[in-house]
Amino acid sequence: MRKAINSSVILTVIILVLAAGVVGLLLYIKNQPAPTRGIAPLTLIAAMEPDMAKWGVNFPNEYTTLLQTSNNNTRTTYGGSEKVDKLAEDPRLVTLFAGYPFSLDYDEDRGHLRSVEDVRSTGRLNEKTPGTCYSCKSSDNPSLWADMGMVAYDKTPFADLGQRIHNPIGCANCHEANTMRLIVTNPALEEALIAQGKDWHTFTRQEMRSIVCANCHVEYYFAGEGKYLTFPWEKGTTVDAIEEYYQEINFTDWTHKDSGTAMVKMQHPDFELFSAGSTHYNAGVSCADCHMPYTRDGAAKFSNHSVQSPLINPAASCGACHTDVDFVVERAKTIQGQVSTTMIATEDALVSAIRAITTAAADSGADPKLLEQARALHRSAQLRWDYIAAENSMGFHNPEEALRILASATDLARQAELQATLALKGKAAVN
Amino acid sequence: MRKAINSSVILTVIILVLAAGVVGLLLYIKNQPAPTRGIAPLTLIAAMEPDMAKWGVNFPNEYTTLLQTSNNNTRTTYGGSEKVDKLAEDPRLVTLFAGYPFSLDYDEDRGHLRSVEDVRSTGRLNEKTPGTCYSCKSSDNPSLWADMGMVAYDKTPFADLGQRIHNPIGCANCHEANTMRLIVTNPALEEALIAQGKDWHTFTRQEMRSIVCANCHVEYYFAGEGKYLTFPWEKGTTVDAIEEYYQEINFTDWTHKDSGTAMVKMQHPDFELFSAGSTHYNAGVSCADCHMPYTRDGAAKFSNHSVQSPLINPAASCGACHTDVDFVVERAKTIQGQVSTTMIATEDALVSAIRAITTAAADSGADPKLLEQARALHRSAQLRWDYIAAENSMGFHNPEEALRILASATDLARQAELQATLALKGKAAVN
Repeated sequence: MRKAINSSVILTVIILVLAAGVVGLLLYIKNQPAPTRGIAPLTLIAAMEPDMAKWGVNFPNEYTTLLQTSNNNTRTTYGGSEKVDKLAEDPRLVTLFAGYPFSLDYDEDRGHLRSVEDVRSTGRLNEKTPGTCYSCKSSDNPSLWADMGMVAYDKTPFADLGQRIHNPIGCANCHEANTMRLIVTNPALEEALIAQGKDWHTFTRQEMRSIVCANCHVEYYFAGEGKYLTFPWEKGTTVDAIEEYYQEINFTDWTHKDSGTAMVKMQHPDFELFSAGSTHYNAGVSCADCHMPYTRDGAAKFSNHSVQSPLINPAASCGACHTDVDFVVERAKTIQGQVSTTMIATEDALVSAIRAITTAAADSGADPKLLEQARALHRSAQLRWDYIAAENSMGFHNPEEALRILASATDLARQAELQATLALKGKAAVN
Repeated sequence: MRKAINSSVILTVIILVLAAGVVGLLLYIKNQPAPTRGIAPLTLIAAMEPDMAKWGVNFPNEYTTLLQTSNNNTRTTYGGSEKVDKLAEDPRLVTLFAGYPFSLDYDEDRGHLRSVEDVRSTGRLNEKTPGTCYSCKSSDNPSLWADMGMVAYDKTPFADLGQRIHNPIGCANCHEANTMRLIVTNPALEEALIAQGKDWHTFTRQEMRSIVCANCHVEYYFAGEGKYLTFPWEKGTTVDAIEEYYQEINFTDWTHKDSGTAMVKMQHPDFELFSAGSTHYNAGVSCADCHMPYTRDGAAKFSNHSVQSPLINPAASCGACHTDVDFVVERAKTIQGQVSTTMIATEDALVSAIRAITTAAADSGADPKLLEQARALHRSAQLRWDYIAAENSMGFHNPEEALRILASATDLARQAELQATLALKGKAAVN
């Protein structure tokens, strides 16, 4: 009897322990996170796959927000993604870019998904336009560069290369398929980093969250007959280092139609200005922190791929660090107002310089040496102005540096005006 | 018997209650904070008492730190309290102030306790120097203003008024005796606020912690024959508003010896630049927060009255808000470097303008209308430069505004140079 009782007690204990074990295991399984997609992808993606829809199967949040860039044609005070005619807005630009296609057509860029459409519809195209102009426009590029090499890619005429370009900017421009690792895909960026002794493979993820934007949002030029895409970063990325580089290789984008100055057109050195010691950059903030703020979808967190001005959604962009979003938005407004006022003054000085040089150049008695001095000053002044004007933040990426550069640009432009005036009068400078 | 027991119980209870009451009262008294000195002063201070030692009996921490200003002759990169000869450091200033005492002697100010000594030893004094020059130098002022009135005070020659000036800047310049309330003591500040429709009696304590500094750290001028101390704030405190004010009253401090321009000397518009929408001011930071940081003495907290550059003790000054003191000190260094570079460029432009105007003015054939235009531009340019050069933060009080102002100053100076050159050539501007 005692044995029987003992046996049933033992049995009951065993059953209870087993039952508890089963319940525990079930709870453990239930509490496991959903499989991380990067580790166990739903769909395998081919290397450098240009079609973002395929990547989108695995990453619906990133994909759908990327799609939003086709229509986020919002306008901020000084920028945005609306196709605004900059020449109509500020006619000084027609004078500043005289003789260059930017004087004919200069629209605000729209979102990433409109990149191919926008580059094909610009009035700046002509039969000489090289394939290089597609370098920042398409997720077809990484596989094309791998396939053709960048030398052949850049040499191909724009119209011919267009036959192989089907997709706007997409996943493959910044990500490695399946691992989703952020990568440098533009060979010109890799070469520019190497020229500075840098290897992006050693960068932290936070550094990559900025450097992938530098695949495109940088100053670049087309080197030589082959129009080889090159970043002028060998001496550094400040405006002074870039100017020194262009001086040394004696580079010219075009000759100014009125003044006869050998000019350099700046593209959109967003990364350079931001990384030139700005407070946000120095504090370790990345481009993506502000332009692709982390967003929640239920329990999931993802980077919003509807890349746009942080001023469109400051609560998400600024609010991740700043508790006082209204305050910082007001700061941005103040700073951009100060930069805009200063930039317009620089433009007025440049227009005056161009007019003075034009007048002097038309006079056969003008002093050729002073005239050349005036042109050299014009070149330097406009390069500096354009470093700020062409980048997309109205100075906010680095306010003090932007204002420092504009102050020097105005100074140089006014000196150009004076030298041209003196050239016309046929006398040396009074001081 | 029962009655006796009852009585002794009642007595015992009464005794216990009383004893508990006594213990409670003793504990209450023991736990009282030390008498707040402002409420129950150890020594009563006479209204507007000039002698800081008397106040110091009640406020030893504030007093001893104030005494330190006699010797805190520390030097920062761009300022400090060491008696540095600015003219030797930057010889451009000799040209910029030609014909004005500042071209003869322009030393860095030392600490508050050296104010009388420094004003009496400056080489800028002459027999015409009015008593007004003592307005920001002495704790004798509040009682002198009450006694004489500011009109008589300002009219008294400097040497004569000096007989009644015995104390440097002290407690009475900012505090009401006994209540220790922060107060506006300089009648010129009170009048300037009233002119703007402001009543400082309604200001918060935090606002007072800035406005008392504006008793002195401001732009001012001596109005009329009586040299009546006046702040040019009627139209506002931005450089543009101040310039407009001076234009309207056609004010001139001196005529530039070389260029013949009717000039305005800016004093030290620290408060104006700081309050012109700087990020710190807009965030509610006061002058005292950075320049007189709260300091602990055992359980007591007091404002450090050894007023100095926050860069001397950034842990206390910046560290009250910023957790990353090294980072913000580096930011300050970067910003001051950018402002300094830009300011030197402005000075070069001004020196060029002065030379061009001087050359044109020496030529009897020069176009007088263009020459006057050049002088008007010189006046405006130098006023703007001096608004930044004379204030004491190398732009840090408001970096973007400082750079905006310097950019416009350079622009105007170079235009002055051009107009003078054209005046000499006897022809109208080419544009």
